[in-house]
Parts: sequence; C-alpha cells; structure tokens
Amino acid sequence: MSLLSSFYPNALMVVGASADPTKRGFQSIRSLLRDGFAGDIYPVNPRLNELLGLTCYASIEEVPANPELALVCTPAASLLDVIQSCGLKGVKTSIVLASGFAEAGEEGQALQSKAVALAKRFNMRLVGPNTSGVFNTHAKMNLVGFTHLTAGPLGILSQSGNMALSLVTEGSTQLHSGFSSYVGIGNAADLDFHEYLDYFASDKGTGALITYMEGLTDGQAFLKAARSFTANKPLVLYKSGKSESGQRSAKSHTGALAGSYQVAKGVMRQAGVVLVDQPDHLLPVAEALATQPLPAGRRVAVLADGGGHATIAADELDALGLPLAELSASTQAALKALLPKGAAVSNPIDVAGGTDSNPMNFAHCIELLLADPSVDQLLLVGLFGGYALRFDASLAEAEVNTATAIAKLAKASGKPVLVHSLFALNKPAPLQELVEEGTPVYASIETACASLKALVDYAEYRKRISDDDWLTGRGEPSLRVERLVQKVRAEGRTALLEPEAKQLVSAFEVALPEQHWLTHSKELDSLPDELLAQPLAMKVVSQDILHKSDAGGVLLNKQGLNALKAGWQKLYANALHFAPEARLDGVLLSPMADPKGTEVILGVTYDKQYGHLLMFGLGGIFVEVLKDVVFRSLPLARSDAWDMLAGIQAVKVLEGVRGQPPVDKGALVELLLKISALVTAHPEIAELDLNPVRCFRDGYAVLDARMVLFSAAANKSPQQDKRPKQPQAALVH
Amino acid sequence: MSLLSSFYPNALMVVGASADPTKRGFQSIRSLLRDGFAGDIYPVNPRLNELLGLTCYASIEEVPANPELALVCTPAASLLDVIQSCGLKGVKTSIVLASGFAEAGEEGQALQSKAVALAKRFNMRLVGPNTSGVFNTHAKMNLVGFTHLTAGPLGILSQSGNMALSLVTEGSTQLHSGFSSYVGIGNAADLDFHEYLDYFASDKGTGALITYMEGLTDGQAFLKAARSFTANKPLVLYKSGKSESGQRSAKSHTGALAGSYQVAKGVMRQAGVVLVDQPDHLLPVAEALATQPLPAGRRVAVLADGGGHATIAADELDALGLPLAELSASTQAALKALLPKGAAVSNPIDVAGGTDSNPMNFAHCIELLLADPSVDQLLLVGLFGGYALRFDASLAEAEVNTATAIAKLAKASGKPVLVHSLFALNKPAPLQELVEEGTPVYASIETACASLKALVDYAEYRKRISDDDWLTGRGEPSLRVERLVQKVRAEGRTALLEPEAKQLVSAFEVALPEQHWLTHSKELDSLPDELLAQPLAMKVVSQDILHKSDAGGVLLNKQGLNALKAGWQKLYANALHFAPEARLDGVLLSPMADPKGTEVILGVTYDKQYGHLLMFGLGGIFVEVLKDVVFRSLPLARSDAWDMLAGIQAVKVLEGVRGQPPVDKGALVELLLKISALVTAHPEIAELDLNPVRCFRDGYAVLDARMVLFSAAANKSPQQDKRPKQPQAALVH
Repeated sequence: MSLLSSFYPNALMVVGASADPTKRGFQSIRSLLRDGFAGDIYPVNPRLNELLGLTCYASIEEVPANPELALVCTPAASLLDVIQSCGLKGVKTSIVLASGFAEAGEEGQALQSKAVALAKRFNMRLVGPNTSGVFNTHAKMNLVGFTHLTAGPLGILSQSGNMALSLVTEGSTQLHSGFSSYVGIGNAADLDFHEYLDYFASDKGTGALITYMEGLTDGQAFLKAARSFTANKPLVLYKSGKSESGQRSAKSHTGALAGSYQVAKGVMRQAGVVLVDQPDHLLPVAEALATQPLPAGRRVAVLADGGGHATIAADELDALGLPLAELSASTQAALKALLPKGAAVSNPIDVAGGTDSNPMNFAHCIELLLADPSVDQLLLVGLFGGYALRFDASLAEAEVNTATAIAKLAKASGKPVLVHSLFALNKPAPLQELVEEGTPVYASIETACASLKALVDYAEYRKRISDDDWLTGRGEPSLRVERLVQKVRAEGRTALLEPEAKQLVSAFEVALPEQHWLTHSKELDSLPDELLAQPLAMKVVSQDILHKSDAGGVLLNKQGLNALKAGWQKLYANALHFAPEARLDGVLLSPMADPKGTEVILGVTYDKQYGHLLMFGLGGIFVEVLKDVVFRSLPLARSDAWDMLAGIQAVKVLEGVRGQPPVDKGALVELLLKISALVTAHPEIAELDLNPVRCFRDGYAVLDARMVLFSAAANKSPQQDKRPKQPQAALVH
Repeated sequence: MSLLSSFYPNALMVVGASADPTKRGFQSIRSLLRDGFAGDIYPVNPRLNELLGLTCYASIEEVPANPELALVCTPAASLLDVIQSCGLKGVKTSIVLASGFAEAGEEGQALQSKAVALAKRFNMRLVGPNTSGVFNTHAKMNLVGFTHLTAGPLGILSQSGNMALSLVTEGSTQLHSGFSSYVGIGNAADLDFHEYLDYFASDKGTGALITYMEGLTDGQAFLKAARSFTANKPLVLYKSGKSESGQRSAKSHTGALAGSYQVAKGVMRQAGVVLVDQPDHLLPVAEALATQPLPAGRRVAVLADGGGHATIAADELDALGLPLAELSASTQAALKALLPKGAAVSNPIDVAGGTDSNPMNFAHCIELLLADPSVDQLLLVGLFGGYALRFDASLAEAEVNTATAIAKLAKASGKPVLVHSLFALNKPAPLQELVEEGTPVYASIETACASLKALVDYAEYRKRISDDDWLTGRGEPSLRVERLVQKVRAEGRTALLEPEAKQLVSAFEVALPEQHWLTHSKELDSLPDELLAQPLAMKVVSQDILHKSDAGGVLLNKQGLNALKAGWQKLYANALHFAPEARLDGVLLSPMADPKGTEVILGVTYDKQYGHLLMFGLGGIFVEVLKDVVFRSLPLARSDAWDMLAGIQAVKVLEGVRGQPPVDKGALVELLLKISALVTAHPEIAELDLNPVRCFRDGYAVLDARMVLFSAAANKSPQQDKRPKQPQAALVH
C-alpha cells in the first residue's frame, strides 16, 4: 500500500510554493515547519530563491532529491506539465488542489482524464483534483491549512472540504481525543473512496475513521474495502443526498423501492459500517468507537447526580433498544452502604448528593458497577467535572483525582465508559483529564447514548462475522438455468413467463407448490382426477401481460373439469379484452395454498452503484404503503439473511399476529440464501420478484414469480458495465 | 396575577441569610447587590448584625417593612414558624428551598401539607419546597446562584434544577439571546405548572418559555393554561419519563394504547405546545421561536458557501417535510448576476466562492431571497462568521458589517432567518452581532432545521386556532342517553351491550347501519321478508362476553330463515361453551356491510392526568402491531379532528390503497366531533370503542361498539376525582 508511505513521506515537494501568507503554497510550508515535520521540504517556484528559510527551486527538475509526495498548488492549466515532471522525478503520489476540472464542465473533464492517463504512465497516483488536501498529524504533515489540530486516533475521509473543516472546528471547540489523517477526496479522478479506506486500514495512527460521503462511483469496490476495514477498525459514515429519490423507471416493486438512502442503509450495515443519521453524530460516535473496547452486550448502567439527567438517559437508552442493566443484590447493597439514604441504587443510580462534597464517591460507585457482570457499558451523567465551578473551588483537586481514577477503572474493566457533563463545553480540568486518559466526554446525553448504541451495533457486527459462513449465499451456475436463459433469449425475450421463472428458481432448490402449465385447453381433459377434485388457482400465462390481476388474469377456487373449462375461456377473454394483441401461452394451474399465512416479498434488482441487491419485506400494505423493506447486496452471508428478517419495522408480524401462525424463519432464511446463490451464479438476472411468498409455521409457498434478464446484447455479466476508471492497484505499485 | 408582582418585588426578605459564601443565604444577596437589584433587601438571621453592607434582622417580625417576597433558606423543621411569621408580615409569595418534604417520605409529606394549609390561611403562595429557586434577570433578581446569566426573552420552567443548570450553562457557552425568568417548581406543593404558565404569560420580559417536565398532577389545568399561553407566546416542552409504559389493566384497545408519551404528544400538540424529542433542542428551538416572526408557509431558501452543508440542509429539511422554495426566474437571474459562474442559483444556493473575499455578497443574496414571494423562511449555512478566522483577518470588519446588514434585512422582511455557522462555538464578532440583533445562530444544521420546523408547526397552530370553532366538539346532555345510562346502572351493570352502545351513540346523530336486536329466537319468524332475503351478520349479545369473536359469537353471511335459526343455535352453543355461566341477551342481526372500505378505530378512555381522551387509528394490524394511533383530549375543535386524521403514520391509507376507495374524511371528522360531543355531555362514559368503523367513499359503517360507564357510586362526573390541591387563584389574590 504505497499511499501509506506517501502519507508518511521522507521528503515532499510543494509545487507552486508562495510567499503570500493567504496561499496554500505558503501556509502548508509554514505548518510543516511549525509542527516539526521530520522529512525534507522542497518548495518549487521559479520566482523565489528562498522561502521561510528553505531553499526554493525554480523547477521540479532542479529539486536535488526524489520526494515521494508532491503537493501541487498551481492552477489547472499547469497540471499536465507538473505531472510529467513529477512523474519523471519518481513522485508516487500528487495532491492536486486546483479546481477547474470535471466539476467545471466538459473541458475540465477532458483535462482531468488526460491528467489521470498521464499519471498512470508514470505509475503515479493523484489525490483530487479539486481537493482541500491532506493532513497526517502523526507525520506532523498538515497540508490543508486547518488550525488547532490535536493528534489522535480519528481519521477523516471527506467528499466536502467544508465538512472536514466543520469536524476539525468541532474538535477544537470541544474536548476530544484528536485526529490522525485527513483526506479530501475532491473529484476522485484517480484515487477513490475504497483506496483511501485501504490507507486508513493500514495506518497505525488511525483507530476509527469518519467518512462524509455524497455519492459513490464504485459502490461495490467501496463495500469490499469497507468490509475489510470494519473487520478491524470502526468506520462511521454520514451519507448525504438522502432526499434524492432514486428515480427509476423500473417496473418491479423492488426497483421502485430501491431509493438510494434505503439501499445505502442496508448495504452499509451489511459491510459493518456505522451509518449515522446526523452529521452531528460523526465526531462523538467515532470518539467512542476509537477509544472504547467493544461491549459484550447491550446492558447499560447509568450513574447520575440528579434525577433529571438520569431520567433523560433512561428514556434515550430505551428508545435505542439498550436495556438498563439489572444490578445484582450485592452491588445494590454496596451502593447503598456508600451513598446517602435518599439515593436510588437500582439502575439508573442517583447519588442524591452523595458526591457533592466528595466527588471520589463517583469512582467508588463506578468500581462497583463495572464489577457487576450485568453491566456491559457505563454512562455517567450530570455535573461531574463542574463541581468546582458549581459548588466550591476547593473541590477542584478531588475532581481531577476522581477523573484519573475513573479513567483507570474504565481501562481495567475492559468495558466502555462514557461521561456526560453539562460542563463539557467549559472544558474544565477534570474533563480534560478524562479525555486524555481515554474516556470520552459528551455535552449531550442524547449523543452519548447514540454513541453507546454505535458501540453495541459494531460489537454485534464483529461478533456475527467472526463465525459467519460467507460462502452460503454464493452458488455454482446451473445447467438447467443456462438452458432456460438461452431459450428465452433465443425467442427474443428478456421477461420470463411465470412458470419459467418458477422453474428457474426451483433449479436452486427453492420449494415450489405443485403447478401445471397447460398450453391448450384440451389438456384439461387429461388432468389426473386427484387434481380435478381440488379447488385450483388459474392464471393466464402471457409474455405480454406483466400484471395478471389488472388484466383479470387470475381465478381462484375453481374445482372440476367444467369449472376449469369455463375458467379458461374467461381468462382468455379477459386477457384479450385487456390486451387485444397479446400472445397467450396457456394457463397455469395450482392447488389453492393454505390461506392462513403471512405474505412476504423477496425481490432482486440491479443497482448501478452496488450491483445486485436483494430486498425483503412484508407483502401488501407494508411494501406498498409503508415501504417497510430492507436491502442487502449479494452474495448474502447467513447472518445477513437473519439480519434482514430482524430489520423490518413490523418485525413483530413475523411472530404471528391477528390469529396468523408465526413465520418459519429458518425456511425464509434458506430461501433468501438460495436466491442469493441463484443470482450470484447467474448475474444475467436483472430483476426477480417472488411476490407474494406466503409463509407458514412450516415452510412457505411461492405464489407468484416474475423475472427479467439482461438482454444478451447488453452484457452477459452486468459487472462489465462499470467504466474501468482506476488502474489496478497491483499493477501500479 | 400576583406572582407577577412577587417576581418583580419592591422588596424581599432573605430568611436564613448567611455569611458563608457557599450558602444560598449569602450567594443570593451577593447576586442581588452585584446585579443592581432595585428593591429593598432584608436579610434575616438572629446571629448577624450586618451582611455585605446590609442591616441584618434578628427575626422576620423585626423587618421594618412588608416585603412581598421571601426567599426561605432555613431547614425544613423551621418552615411552619417561618410561614406563620411571613404570613403575619403580609408576604405574598415564599420561595422554599429546603428539602425533606414530600420527596423524603410520609413524615415530610405531612409537614408539607401542614405548610400549604398554613400558608393558605394567610393567602400566601409557596414556590417549592425542594426548589432550586427563582431568577428574574429583568428584575435583576437572581435567587438561584446560577452564574453568567444574560437577560433576554427565554423563560425556563423546570421540574429539575439540574436541567435548568444545563440550559443556563448551554446558554453561557454558546451564542444566545438570554434568559428572562426561571422557576424551579420543586415539589409543587402549592403553586404548580399551570399557575407558573400564567405568570410567564403575563411577564412582558418573556418571549418564549422552555419547560422541562417529568410528571403532572393536574394535566387538565396544565392543558388549559397551555392553550391560553400558546395563543400568544410559544411554549417549548421536553417531557421525560417517556419510557414509563402507562401500565394499565384496561380491557379496551384505547386504554392499552394510552401509554403516557403517546398521549402527551397528542394533547400537547392540541394545546399548541412545541414538544421536542431531545432536551438538546429546548434552547435552540426556543431561541428561534422567541426571536423570529411566524412564517407564512413551509418553504425554505437555503444559502450556502459550499456544497456539503447545502446538501445536508436539504436532506434535513426534506426529512422534516419542509420543501425547498422554488425561486422565481427573476430571483435566479439576479443571483446569477451577483455570483461567480460556478454558483448554483436554484435552491439550495451555493455561492461557489462568491463571498470568499466579499462577505457582503451574503447580504445581497439574502435581500434577493427574502424579496421572493416563494420564500417563507431562510437558512444560511456554512462558514459565515469565521471568514476572518479561516481566510484572512482583514475580512473581520466586512463580516461584522454583513452581519448587521443581514439582521436588518431579516427584521424588515418579516420572515424568519436562521444562521448556521461551523464557527458558532468560537463566538466570533460577526455571529455575536447577529444574535444581538435578533438573528439566532446555530452550531448544528440539524438543530437549525428542527427550529425552522418548530416555527412552521407553531405558525400553523396559531393560524388554525384563529378561525376555529371551539364549540363544535361540545354537546348538550341527551335525555335518551340519560335514560339508557340509568337503566344500565339500575341493572347493576357498567358495561353496555353492543346494541345499547349503538343506540347510545346514535342519540348524537352517529349514523348506524340497520340492526335488529332479537332476544328470543322465536322473533326470527316475524322478521320482514326483505331482511330474510339478504345475507346478514349475526352476533351474540351478552354482558358476560366482551370479545365476541374469541367466543365464536359472530357469524357472517347468513341468509334465510333456516340459516338464521341454525346460526342462532350455533351462537348460543359457542357462547355457553366459552362461558358456561354467561347470561345471553339474544342476537343482533344486521345486513352485511360493503366489504370494500378502510377500517378505522375510534376509542375513548379516561386518563387520570388529562381526563377524557379520544383515540383515532387505522384498524387491524395498524392498531394492534404498529400502534399507529393519535390521541387528543376532549372536547375536540374541528381543526383538531382534521389534525387527528393527518397525524397517523399511515395517513396515505386514508386516500385509498390496494384497490380500496378513499375514505370520506369529512364524514369521519363529523364522527370524531360527535363522539367528542357525546362524551363531553356525558362524562359518565369511562370507555368507548367503535371498532371497526368501515369507511367508504361516502360515509361509514360502525360495525361494532363497546361502552363502559363509570359506576354510579364512583362518581357521576369523573372530574370530581381530582384532589382539590390548589386553592382557587381567584379566591387568593
């Protein structure tokens, strides 16, 4: 990973160095010198001999070394020359600040493409163009011009320079543990999200990564890199552009529901990313993830020095699904012995004045709470840190000692401990001590609770992937499927008929109810008596009628030969009334399914960013009105399938409500995995809806299936769609 | 309103004055002197002659004046003596800090009751006990000991002293417009929420009120006072204790769903209260409401100096249901002329560097935007205020001038203008200028957007109450209802039979489908042929069977005499199998209702805090699984009824989905109002469920009704339940 060496360079060039203190070509060099950057700095500017005590070179060629990294501050027009010179000089990575490229229109786009192609010839990578730059506090290399940076574990990867500035400013006005590296991806003409993820993954200085993302060009590469990243380090992401409704002219439910944010939520969760709904949560959530161990469970102990804050914390935790720990009798007794009579010793704990004159009692309480096996995480809320401000200045020393003790207890326990203080923004000494010793401090209870939830989410992810079978949702191509696809394509079609779609999924061992596809009504006469004795569902089969119900193409509960013959006539008449030119391919008969059961929908769609997606939801009003569905990218691991079932809002419906039996979740998970295997093995499937699937106490019945293939002409495997924007990393480095 | 004069006193006593700087008896006097309190201060302490230059009196009796207000700092045990002396001295209001009363157990409760009774004899009111105190910055009277108070328009009424401290500390660490009065309600032994609301309503120094509430003892008095308050000033409330599930052993859906927070949400909204979900929103939302005019509509213009913040703002606004204003062509042209080529001039506006060297361009843009009639509110997001910090110190003056200009434009426009700045917590001069001139500044885009939403909600409330008919949902008692109630009670029952309940609601002109209640199966023989020719629904009538379906007590689609007779037998057999001792009162027959239609549920329950509540929701899975219901207190205004329909999550279902016709909303609103009139006129109704009500394109059919009365013994009007805790204000003052 050569970005790692480029961002910890032994030497760097500043192309377009400047004597103007408002220019980056000056600011960056000033920062490097002030911060004590250990490598060599080579300013380049033909009009300067010296800058801030450094020799200035008239051209890149004249630089008497081969720096690995170049900061390019010159305007867009100069870029091709600069790249040529840098390339010849052996520069591995250039950070290009100038704007005027793809973001500025066609001409800029053309220049950008040329620049990328040229850099590629030299095996040189580009950051940007149109980036606000890069910093790496651990290398004392600040090429952005942000001030008041503290070195620490938090990385920032951002598609907006202003958002990075927001985060850095937020850090500087609040207590926080400090930043490691920042990369502004700018236009991402060359290096893109996933490659920066690899950098942050390998950077020992980064404990957790904050990412601000507007859009992605290669979602699948991102997900792959994210999965690999989050297997070791937490990744906190805010995705803007939520309100862009993914406007598609798709015919299927699945396609229509694949609005970008709902999809992003699903696939990011699947990749272990902690997606936050508010940008305000990025920094505080990352603080917790970077500094705290992963909790073994969800149960939280809340310690407070007043009822108000305790109640608010309990409310917030309840809303987030984090239960209050049920303390053991011995813990409660020990707390009782420690605290005044009025104290509440069942969780949440209210010390009731028991710390007012003796803050160290907080540490004693925390020691007891962390030792209780029922406690997975601890949250202290209230006034701690401000006792000297609020009560008596003489408490200052005791409070700092308490902070030291708390941080030590937290570390020793291996459990997450977060502190809320209403004095957090005053940054008093005890709170500074806490943060320095690795215990994060929050000004907002709501944010602290959201951070506890993120710790739980990430811990649960790490736990479930540790023993997951990643291969379950992959499949081998099936000859039966391939033949059917060939047949359909040979007929010039992309949409499969219902019986074809069902045959196709059955090749992957999806259990289907008995069905009989008759192409002529005469065939009714030779149906077995057994079948004629049952009430049957009749559906017209026609490649020209996609939504059979709308066309009067479905009849239910038809029993006996006469009823079936009359039904056939009716179906054909309805179909021809609905679509006079329709080609009719017969009728599909199947015994009526048990009417008791919960209907769900499974759908597959192909997303330009993330590839094949699988959607799951409850049928009917839940999917059509409430849009209560979840998405995952394919292939699916077994735990992903379980996570999908648990992810719908109305999850309780799966347990059986209003007299319905509970759903056979095990069978449903298998079905999701089989569809995943099918589509992974046969990426020529563009859309697939099993809708509805009626679920019973045991098993399920696929009542309808729709499937559309990519046209053979377009591509056999849609992955080839993607523009091969980036050279393979392996080739370059 | 004598609290008003008490909290702007000409003179006050501090009972329990102290020379110890850590005691309130010292701190309060120091604050009064330092802040320049204009009235006379009388410290009382038998062991001091002089305190901070003031004469100190040995007893209350010796004070040479009749101060209206007393701050009582002495311990609980002294309270009765102090009240006696204060009462004789003519003190009107005493603020009692001591704890050790109701919150400390039975003994304390007894002492508290005695204190209230004694005070009442002197027509004296008590704040507290167990209160953190009171401040009034406009009277320069700080009796709490909070520091760094700025005088301004925001009142605070809090059930937790720590929450008030949180708010004041938040204010002191951020830019904000300042506080007016604070009251800690403490134990609310005498003065309670609603009476303080009246104070804040009449206090000219308060522009908006922030309230932190844990629980209420007199919810109806609060709602009444709140309605009156919010007709003139905004009230922002955070209600904690959300997770206390209102555990009731109620038999009805309505009762079971009346969990406290869901109810609080409904009734607070009905009273015009802005309920915030997070305590973090209290101060910022109140800032906007106190300083900004009410918007004429929901449309927002977003002005940004970078894409990231613009996108985030657009996302947040979209999530809150606030549309981006569609700017006129002329506004867009004028913006284009003003800004560089790359600027985005359709909303959200991105100045694309057009302000970097000339911040005043912000004011020019804002002038154009505010002049556009499509813009109801404006939000500026990004770096403004920090240009001198980020770009060049020389911009400082231009930025302050820009701030002055923006605040002036905002005022002149009569439209709300809010500013987000990532430098807000740095409090640079331009942002200070904005806040001083009445334009609030936010560090968080999410919070700024939530504040815009609160402005819209409150404006819409003010608009709808201005032309509402408040009497629609009240009714006059009906003789028919009274007779039926008497009959039921005479039989020793409280639960009505289904046909009785239906008769009862029909007295208030609720349209009911045709029904025939037969008490003997022989009566089937004399049914009109017309009825026998139709398919009928049959339901067993029994006071011992509440849930008929569970008992097999409902048969559908029975047609003809024989089927009805067989049905009767079956119903009776099922009922006796289910409840062998059940008294059976016959069978109810009604023609089958149109099966097409959307089922809703209306329910009435009696809530100890808020009195009679009306619940509305969609039937079936929506109420049982999703709990998608709304509550309002009775009586209902017409606009409340419309607001209920609009308030359910799945509101789209009312428009007709999955082939259902749309619901006749007008008829449903009338039905809600009729039920309101019925229950208002007959408060002896304890529970009422119309479930389901099937709604059609025209009208509705009430398919089942359940009603339970309060027992005659308990009370005729349940309002008499309430302990008459407070003396009537009119009697006292």
